[in-house]
Amino acid sequence: MYDKAMHALGSTQSGIRELFDYGQKQAAIVGKENVYDYSIGNPSVPAPEAVKKAIQELLEGDPLALHGYSSAQGDGWARKAIAENLSRRTGDNIDADCIYFTCGAAPAIVGSLRALRQDENTEVLLLAPFFPEYTMYAQACNIKAVVVPPDTENFQVDLAAVEARISPNTQAVIVNSPNNPSGVVYSRETLEAMAALLRKKSAEYGHPIFIICDEPYRELVYDGGEVPYVPAIYNNTIICYSWSKSLSLPGERIGYFCVPPCVDDSKNVYAAIKGAMRTLGHVCAPTMMQKVAAKCVDIMPDLSVYDQNRKTLYEALTGYGYRCVYPQGAFYMMIGAPDGDDNAMSERAKKYNLLIVPGTGFGAPGFLRISTCVDPAMIQRSLPAFKALMEEYK
Amino acid sequence: MYDKAMHALGSTQSGIRELFDYGQKQAAIVGKENVYDYSIGNPSVPAPEAVKKAIQELLEGDPLALHGYSSAQGDGWARKAIAENLSRRTGDNIDADCIYFTCGAAPAIVGSLRALRQDENTEVLLLAPFFPEYTMYAQACNIKAVVVPPDTENFQVDLAAVEARISPNTQAVIVNSPNNPSGVVYSRETLEAMAALLRKKSAEYGHPIFIICDEPYRELVYDGGEVPYVPAIYNNTIICYSWSKSLSLPGERIGYFCVPPCVDDSKNVYAAIKGAMRTLGHVCAPTMMQKVAAKCVDIMPDLSVYDQNRKTLYEALTGYGYRCVYPQGAFYMMIGAPDGDDNAMSERAKKYNLLIVPGTGFGAPGFLRISTCVDPAMIQRSLPAFKALMEEYK
Repeated sequence: MYDKAMHALGSTQSGIRELFDYGQKQAAIVGKENVYDYSIGNPSVPAPEAVKKAIQELLEGDPLALHGYSSAQGDGWARKAIAENLSRRTGDNIDADCIYFTCGAAPAIVGSLRALRQDENTEVLLLAPFFPEYTMYAQACNIKAVVVPPDTENFQVDLAAVEARISPNTQAVIVNSPNNPSGVVYSRETLEAMAALLRKKSAEYGHPIFIICDEPYRELVYDGGEVPYVPAIYNNTIICYSWSKSLSLPGERIGYFCVPPCVDDSKNVYAAIKGAMRTLGHVCAPTMMQKVAAKCVDIMPDLSVYDQNRKTLYEALTGYGYRCVYPQGAFYMMIGAPDGDDNAMSERAKKYNLLIVPGTGFGAPGFLRISTCVDPAMIQRSLPAFKALMEEYK
Repeated sequence: MYDKAMHALGSTQSGIRELFDYGQKQAAIVGKENVYDYSIGNPSVPAPEAVKKAIQELLEGDPLALHGYSSAQGDGWARKAIAENLSRRTGDNIDADCIYFTCGAAPAIVGSLRALRQDENTEVLLLAPFFPEYTMYAQACNIKAVVVPPDTENFQVDLAAVEARISPNTQAVIVNSPNNPSGVVYSRETLEAMAALLRKKSAEYGHPIFIICDEPYRELVYDGGEVPYVPAIYNNTIICYSWSKSLSLPGERIGYFCVPPCVDDSKNVYAAIKGAMRTLGHVCAPTMMQKVAAKCVDIMPDLSVYDQNRKTLYEALTGYGYRCVYPQGAFYMMIGAPDGDDNAMSERAKKYNLLIVPGTGFGAPGFLRISTCVDPAMIQRSLPAFKALMEEYK
C-alpha cells in the first residue's frame, strides 16, 4: 500500500529530535529552567535587524514581482549579488550562472548527489563525524553511503581511512567544515592532503571524484580562524550553502548551490544538478528570501554569544575532567564518554536533566555532541550537572 | 561524470518557458505592448493587502520564533488553523496532524508518489490534459506515468480510457481540478463515476488505488460553480495544495499535503509521505509563510479580473470561429487547432506576436493553452491577432 522504507523514515525520529522532545516534556515536570537542553542546533541569536528592514523595504515594492515565480535558478539580480560577494571574498570568478537558489542546503546536497549518480554501484564518502541526514539523502538517490571513521584525536580527517574506502565507484565526498557535530574547522593542510589523494584517485579511476561542500557554518569561525575556500584547493568542488545559521533564518529555507568555473565541464555539471532539482519538485526558492539574502549578503553574524558559550563550556568541562576537542567554529563541540559508551552517557545525563546527543548517529561512537547555541544563563545553571555526571565516572 | 537523464532535464526548457523567453526577446524588438503573451500561468492579480499586513505584524514578534525551524510537518498553530478552515468548508474532520506544510504543491506530489511506490512496476495515471511536470515527478520516483487520453468534447474524464489503462500496478491517479490547462472543473458526476471505477478496481486488485488531488486552483472557480471535495466522494484521496494562485504567492513556495482521516490506514500513509519528504531534503516549509497562510486562510482571491478575461476571450474567440471548451475555473482555457496541428498553430501565431502553448506537452495534441491571467488591455490589443490567425484556416 505504501513504501515500507519511507514509512520507517517517517515513523522514527532522529535521536536529536527525540532528546529535544524528551526535554520539552521534562520541562513541564521539573520546570523549564531546570532542564539543560544541549540537543538542537537552532540559532539562539536572532536574525539581524537588517533582515527585518530588508523585508519591510521589499514589502513596499510591487507584490507581483516580490512574490511571483522566479526562474528555477532564482532571481538574476539576487544571484548576481551573491556571486559578486563570493568572488570578492574568495578571489574566484563566480558569476550569477554559477549560483542556483535552493530551499536550504539540504535539497542542494540531494540534487548534487542525484546529478552525480552513475549507476546502482555509485558511492559517496561520509567523513565521520557527519550530519546524520546525509545517509538519508544518499539513500534517496540510491547511492551507497560509505562511512569513513573519525580521526578521534582532533576530528580532522583520517586520510588513510579515506584511501582505504575510496573505490572506482566513489563519485563524491561530503565535506562539512566548520563541522557539525565537532565544531572543528578542517585545516588547509587537511584539505590539501585530501585534495592530493582525490586527484590521484580521480586520475587512477579516470573520472573526477567531487567534493560536495556543505557550508552552512562557513561564517561561524572564532579566534580569527581561517575557513579555507575549498575550490581553490580542489577544483571539482560543489558548494552547498544556507543562510540558516549566518543570518539565523533556518526556518525560511534559503540557500544555494554553486558550481564554480574551476569544476571540470562546470556548465554541464550545473545543468545536471538543475535537472535533478526539477525532479525533486523544486520550482524556485522562496522569492522574497532570495532578495533578503542578496540585500544582507555582506552582513556577518554576531558571534559573540556563541564564542563566549564555547569558551565557558570548554573551560568548565575540561576542568571537570571531560575530554574535549577545542571547537573552532559552528556552534557545537564534542566530549568523550570516559567508558566509550556514548548512548549510556546520554542516558545517565538525563538523570541530571542534562540533554546531550550520543555521537553514534554522527558516526562517532564514544563521543557526544553539545550544541553551544544556547542561553548563557542555562550554561551557568547546568555546570553542576556536568560536574556530577563526570563524578560518576571517577 | 554526471547522470545523463538529469543533465537532459536541466538542459532543456519546458515548451511554456521557451515561448515565454521568446516573448521577452520579441518584446525588445517590436515593443512590449505588441507582444501578446498567453504562455505563463503567473497570477496577474497581486497578493491581497492582508498578506502584507500579516508579514508586517509577524515582523514585530520574536525573530527567533518567526524564522526558526518548525517541525518537519510545520508549525502546530498554523496547521491547526488550516485544518479548522478545511473542516469548516468541507464538513470533514481534518485535524492538525492530517496537514503537513510543504514548499508548494510540487514536492507534496513528489513525496506522495514516492511514498506510494511499490516496486519498479508501479504506475500512476495522468488524465490528459495534465500539467507536464507530472511526468518528471513520476520519473524521479521511478514510477511509470501512464497517460489517459483526453475527453476532447468537454475535457472531463474519459472513463473507458481510464479503465482500459488501469492495471494491478496502478497505485494512484493524479486529479487536477480546476484543471491546468483546460480550465475545466471536474463535475460531481465525473468524480463519482471515477470513484466507482477505482473502488471496483481496488477491490479487484486487493489494494487501494489512491487519488492524488493537485488543487492549487481550488478557489478559482466562476459563475458560483462547485469544486467537489474529493475525499467525500472517494476515501483514498490525498490532497496537495498550494497558496500560489489563491493568495498570488507562487514564488514563496508554501503549500501542504493533507491525508484526511477517511484514507485507509491514514496515519501510516501520512508517515510514509513524511518519510519521503525527508529524503527529498525537506526540512520544513518556509516558517514565516506558514504563519502568513494561516493568518490569511479565510481570504478568498479576487477573481473579477480573471473572470472578465475568461469571458472576453471566450466570446471573442468563439465569435472568430475558434473551438473552445467553456472554462469554469483556474485561469486557462484551451482552443482547438482547426487542422489538428497544435505545434504548427503555435508557430503560425508567432507571426502575429501571439504566444499560445501547444497542447501536445499537456497530453492534448490538437489543442492549445491560453493563460487568462493577463492584463485585460493586452487582451483587447490581441484580438485582431487572434482574428487574423483564424482567417488563415478558413
